Amino acid sequence: MLVAGTTRTAEIDGISAAGTDPGLLVHTPSADAEIVTYGEPIRAPVVPVSPGGCPTPAVVTRAVRELISLDVTVVDGGLAEPTGAPTVTVGARPGDDIRDRDPVSTAPGVLAAAREFGRAVPDDEVYLAETVPGGTTTALGVVRALGEGLAVSSSLPENPLELKHDVVRAGLEASSLAPGDAAGEPAVALRRMGDPVLATITGLIVGLVEGGTAVTLAGGTQLLAAAALARHAGVDTTVRLATTVFVATDERVDLRTAAGELNVELTVTDPGFEGRDHPAMDAYVAGEAKEGVGMGGALALADAAGVPMDEVRDRTVTVYNRLLDGQEPMGADS
Amino acid sequence: MLVAGTTRTAEIDGISAAGTDPGLLVHTPSADAEIVTYGEPIRAPVVPVSPGGCPTPAVVTRAVRELISLDVTVVDGGLAEPTGAPTVTVGARPGDDIRDRDPVSTAPGVLAAAREFGRAVPDDEVYLAETVPGGTTTALGVVRALGEGLAVSSSLPENPLELKHDVVRAGLEASSLAPGDAAGEPAVALRRMGDPVLATITGLIVGLVEGGTAVTLAGGTQLLAAAALARHAGVDTTVRLATTVFVATDERVDLRTAAGELNVELTVTDPGFEGRDHPAMDAYVAGEAKEGVGMGGALALADAAGVPMDEVRDRTVTVYNRLLDGQEPMGADS
Repeated sequence: MLVAGTTRTAEIDGISAAGTDPGLLVHTPSADAEIVTYGEPIRAPVVPVSPGGCPTPAVVTRAVRELISLDVTVVDGGLAEPTGAPTVTVGARPGDDIRDRDPVSTAPGVLAAAREFGRAVPDDEVYLAETVPGGTTTALGVVRALGEGLAVSSSLPENPLELKHDVVRAGLEASSLAPGDAAGEPAVALRRMGDPVLATITGLIVGLVEGGTAVTLAGGTQLLAAAALARHAGVDTTVRLATTVFVATDERVDLRTAAGELNVELTVTDPGFEGRDHPAMDAYVAGEAKEGVGMGGALALADAAGVPMDEVRDRTVTVYNRLLDGQEPMGADS
Repeated sequence: MLVAGTTRTAEIDGISAAGTDPGLLVHTPSADAEIVTYGEPIRAPVVPVSPGGCPTPAVVTRAVRELISLDVTVVDGGLAEPTGAPTVTVGARPGDDIRDRDPVSTAPGVLAAAREFGRAVPDDEVYLAETVPGGTTTALGVVRALGEGLAVSSSLPENPLELKHDVVRAGLEASSLAPGDAAGEPAVALRRMGDPVLATITGLIVGLVEGGTAVTLAGGTQLLAAAALARHAGVDTTVRLATTVFVATDERVDLRTAAGELNVELTVTDPGFEGRDHPAMDAYVAGEAKEGVGMGGALALADAAGVPMDEVRDRTVTVYNRLLDGQEPMGADS
């Protein structure tokens, strides 16, 4: 399940790398959903590429989908622009800047609807992924509101942590919250300091676990923040996190310690992008993007299915080339 | 692609069999989309079963999905109740009773958005299916408005053709239209006498054909009406219709002649339900339901994939039992 949505927190200068042009960022989640679903953007007018030329991690997730059987359900976590991907609705609306007082007023309703949907899903196992530009900043916002010590990663090689902390401080002040004031109250943390994607994912975790579905969080520190939210919502069963080596080796994030404190089991997959001399991979090796759109989860599933990583790399190049030259269109089945 | 939506024309007493309780009819398309997607209703509070005990044809389509690889994209063609199935949005809203003056005011926008979406879909081949209670009456409405002579089938063993003709006459009068007044103007026929599902399907046909995607209409007389609409919209390429033997042998409908007049190639598949002595199949043999939710298309795809019909029948029983006793939940992958 890919939860796709937006927060106007992404519009703060320097916060996000998910898209070259800040004015196009708002299309990134819609495009990501289409790339995973169809192999290319079909309605969204952008191909999400970072300022450094790094393509969206949706390319890797799609590459895995072309190698193994992998159903994808996209959940609308507050999309601001149309997508051609089919989406499940849980009432999410685009999130506002967390420096506003009530940036995610739909959070309580979204938590309830996502929980109900998650409880009803008949699958034995679900991987949960996200695409939301600005999402590491809102993730930092909710963990501070909960009083957790988690650090967050970035889609930029130089993580603008000072800026993120400034934004979170301003957000807490606007919400009249001190760090930890929302402990045990995930709906408050999400509504005041989060984004609609995190609200959707938190509701899904609670509902899926209640419905007996095994949950793997497919992503980086945003998904760890979702795990923290789920813990504060009372979820006490084992939760797994499948992420990339790029997050796991991020010096600004002590992933293993944070995962340990949240009782989250880690699976780290290395796609072996170094030394391949391809723009789609060099940027990841240089620390861009790192994770997102379920990349780490998709890599873990490919690995578990016995697909060699060189096949994943080859297919990543195929998908990348298709995106950039508009050639070789193909359906999800091809 | 399954287009799911509603028209208040279905609320006219005696028009539709798609659901035992008229008050629950409005949930039928949402439930059908969930059955095809997940194998059972997950959000919709109903299992669509006709007054005679006949289950929705979604059961057969789902059975085929569990036997062959078959991606499904649900398009929201005017759903009035939430569905847990992911849906593509083209701006459709629930349709009003065609005896109103402007029952499908969204038709022009839906035609344009569905056409644009269809043009962008990268697949080589798409089967188009519908679920809309009351849809044969609105189909009759549009073909009369276009001036075509097509007769329509029914989900009831005794086709209430007199009632349908009365409703269509009242609708034409309310719209100040004589039969044939909307010839060459499918948007007018759809807006005044149609339903939002037909509008969506017509736009999809036009867009898919423009985008080089082969189109098979998966259904009965409603899809033939969509073919007529597409012809009036200027589509002149070959269109195929895959339907069930239950529609093809309906004495009230001369399917072969009608298809011939519209230059539509027919594929008729017989699932061999007679003599099986199972309520899910006996009702079809007795003339209930007949078609819908892509049943004829799914059967044709199973046949083309070399799946023996007895496997389709066995799996139909499995899906039927799962629906009715809530046991054996499974995901689309299982």
